[in-house]
Amino acid sequence: MKSSTERLLRACLRRRAHHGALMMDPTDLHWLSATDAARLIRDGIISSAELVEACLRRVHEVDAEVQAWAFLDPDHALAQARAADAWRLEGRPTGPLHGVPVGIKDIIETADMPTEHGSVLYAGRTPSRDATVVAMLRAAGAVIMGKTVTTEFATYTPGKTRNPHDPGHTPGGSSSGSAAAVAAGMVPLALGSQTNGSTIRPASFCGVYGLKPSHGLISRHGILALSRTLDHVGLFGRTIEDIALLAAQIVGYDERDPDTRPRARIPFVEMAAEEPPLPPMFAFVKTPHWERADAEMQAAFAELVEHLGDRVEEVELFPSAVEAWEWHRRIMEAEMAANLEREWDKGRDRLSESLRAQLERGREVRALDYQRAVARIGPTYESFAELFEQRYDAILTPAAPGTAPKNLASTRDPAFCTLWTLTGMPALSVPLMQGANGLPLGVQLVGPRDGDARLLRTARWLVTRLAAG
Amino acid sequence: MKSSTERLLRACLRRRAHHGALMMDPTDLHWLSATDAARLIRDGIISSAELVEACLRRVHEVDAEVQAWAFLDPDHALAQARAADAWRLEGRPTGPLHGVPVGIKDIIETADMPTEHGSVLYAGRTPSRDATVVAMLRAAGAVIMGKTVTTEFATYTPGKTRNPHDPGHTPGGSSSGSAAAVAAGMVPLALGSQTNGSTIRPASFCGVYGLKPSHGLISRHGILALSRTLDHVGLFGRTIEDIALLAAQIVGYDERDPDTRPRARIPFVEMAAEEPPLPPMFAFVKTPHWERADAEMQAAFAELVEHLGDRVEEVELFPSAVEAWEWHRRIMEAEMAANLEREWDKGRDRLSESLRAQLERGREVRALDYQRAVARIGPTYESFAELFEQRYDAILTPAAPGTAPKNLASTRDPAFCTLWTLTGMPALSVPLMQGANGLPLGVQLVGPRDGDARLLRTARWLVTRLAAG
Repeated sequence: MKSSTERLLRACLRRRAHHGALMMDPTDLHWLSATDAARLIRDGIISSAELVEACLRRVHEVDAEVQAWAFLDPDHALAQARAADAWRLEGRPTGPLHGVPVGIKDIIETADMPTEHGSVLYAGRTPSRDATVVAMLRAAGAVIMGKTVTTEFATYTPGKTRNPHDPGHTPGGSSSGSAAAVAAGMVPLALGSQTNGSTIRPASFCGVYGLKPSHGLISRHGILALSRTLDHVGLFGRTIEDIALLAAQIVGYDERDPDTRPRARIPFVEMAAEEPPLPPMFAFVKTPHWERADAEMQAAFAELVEHLGDRVEEVELFPSAVEAWEWHRRIMEAEMAANLEREWDKGRDRLSESLRAQLERGREVRALDYQRAVARIGPTYESFAELFEQRYDAILTPAAPGTAPKNLASTRDPAFCTLWTLTGMPALSVPLMQGANGLPLGVQLVGPRDGDARLLRTARWLVTRLAAG
Repeated sequence: MKSSTERLLRACLRRRAHHGALMMDPTDLHWLSATDAARLIRDGIISSAELVEACLRRVHEVDAEVQAWAFLDPDHALAQARAADAWRLEGRPTGPLHGVPVGIKDIIETADMPTEHGSVLYAGRTPSRDATVVAMLRAAGAVIMGKTVTTEFATYTPGKTRNPHDPGHTPGGSSSGSAAAVAAGMVPLALGSQTNGSTIRPASFCGVYGLKPSHGLISRHGILALSRTLDHVGLFGRTIEDIALLAAQIVGYDERDPDTRPRARIPFVEMAAEEPPLPPMFAFVKTPHWERADAEMQAAFAELVEHLGDRVEEVELFPSAVEAWEWHRRIMEAEMAANLEREWDKGRDRLSESLRAQLERGREVRALDYQRAVARIGPTYESFAELFEQRYDAILTPAAPGTAPKNLASTRDPAFCTLWTLTGMPALSVPLMQGANGLPLGVQLVGPRDGDARLLRTARWLVTRLAAG
């Protein structure tokens, strides 16, 4: 590292330390935000190889305990970093994530690494292509660090990962490794997915930001398909600006994902950094499953609402919302049964019992009931769209029922995520609170479809406001 | 009519007579093509009121026998025509269909006329809005002439319409009235729909052009929904240029039809009028249901293929194509069961027995089997896309198994349409042939998705080539 520029670097690390939720050693690069790291690499203050080496040291230090990685070849990661450095030194144009390492959930295909879907059925399989999001990350200059642990087929049966805040606790799932790797400082950014609560819940349990974007905003081509209606790519980072930076690289139309649409570029980074023109209004929504939230979570929300004063109002959901969980289950199970039909036919004895039971139920759903559930999504979303048009900037609701339980056999209840996944609205888990056990507790913000960048701006306002006391 | 311009008008009518398949009286305006009529109105040679009056006289003359109309209020049609004339005389800008009457299938909503879906369940119902296509037609200046007869819910149970070539024969369905009204010279253009063979088959039986466009090209918002996957708007006209003119007005993105896409304007009229850069190559496809075609149809095709010489090759379908009819049935029945659930719940005793049986079957389809069928559409289409990329401009195949049967109780077998509807490819029925009984026989041309305008150009080449002998 150039000593003349150490001061700038230290300032970045101090800034990081100020925002971060975890203890950190400011002399080490692995806690840099992706935004700072990209800037320092661009300006030649650090090299990508130095950054990736620091991240690899961190992996070496903590991953025996955390076990966030399904695949990580240090030489391959370093080779990418060195190639990025050589490229820059030749004076060639660099992308916004040039030299920055990103973790990729092990259901997202990578042409140079295995993609095993958390199942023995796919052990050792290396696909022949990159998923669209991986190709877009490479085009932005990112180093594909490795593959992060997923639960079995991104459903309920956990992988080996532990919560970096306390290894006796679950990291949540299904994007367990992505959330844990970012939280533990092994990588500044990671991709996951969400079909029910697979991004928001582990982000909440691990104390990082997790964005489940609007349905159709980010291509799912080359990613394990469970449910076209419900599958989303998920984004993990330790700062809002990092989430914005990552989103800006991977949002876009892809003709191979029929739910994406051509649209104008969304200025994620710029909008996330802006001050809202007016202080936002929040709708506090308990959902019909409020009784599932821990007393601690309920109390934390009461405090938060009190603190926000006239900026928040409690909003009761329309009565039919209570059925949304059943619609979600029916759609997810029916679509999973179709998408995992080959696995069912050829290897059902090597699936977990719970996945087998899910698929069995899914195989019996009637097309009529399935379509009925799908048909409810539009009107359900419309009720929320009205809420946003009339008065509110974001819904405020728990990300999970409480902190990560002391139980590695379950990733806990996704009930606080289901409604927003079903309706395809953008949802962000914000690491704002802490339980009595010291574990993180996420606040979930939800915005109208395609309002992802504004949601980040609203989140930034909220974090700043709460930091101001 | 201005006598000074009678010569021009007579030329138009003679041109019409030359192309037309029916006997016509060249002194009457109702046989004008839409293209000619629009030009004559634009140039002030005839008025819209004169044209609509001529069409209404024709209705008066033949409709007691043909019975193409479910609703037709002559005063309302004339009032629209007079308003169009007044508008033009004020020097205001006129649209491409200014003053030209169009018939609308009675499953397409019109705010100023009933829309009864061919069912007693909807008797007397007038919707509060226009379907997107109707609004687009009005924006183009068209006179909405009236509502044309549909079979019950655009399925199999016939309405009152008879074949204008011989009233003992079926006009085909489900767009029975639209095909018959255009064929009988009651209106130059009409809209229908197709979920299996509802445009191509009646066009073939009535001896007019019928276009089932690419799936997603024309909005279905405000039209009875049977099956999102299979429903298409259908277009009827007596010339290729009229089909192009009509298509140009109603193609477009509509956010209320999730299968439409924003895209660049397609120059339908210009392209349909162009000479192909090279003589087109045709793929003659018998389909697995060739044995259902009459001996007469088979012989006519043998002659046509002989006549086209090296411009046509017989192409054998890939083996799995034989299953496409079953996939289509499963999708159609499952989606109809969902879309007609309210009718089933509240009025199933007033549905025809055959529709009731269809819905009963549809209600029992498993979501797994339904999704499996939907998942086959993409790969099936890809096999055809390859065919077009490699060598062929259009597929040549029968529009129906033969001429209209002497049976008013059935609209006959749609088997020659099913595959192209399932795959969403544009299909055009071209009134090229005649049976021994004097009734028309259609040739069906099919092109690659979104190649609708090119398909019209190819059809024009074919018609010209065959006219040249």
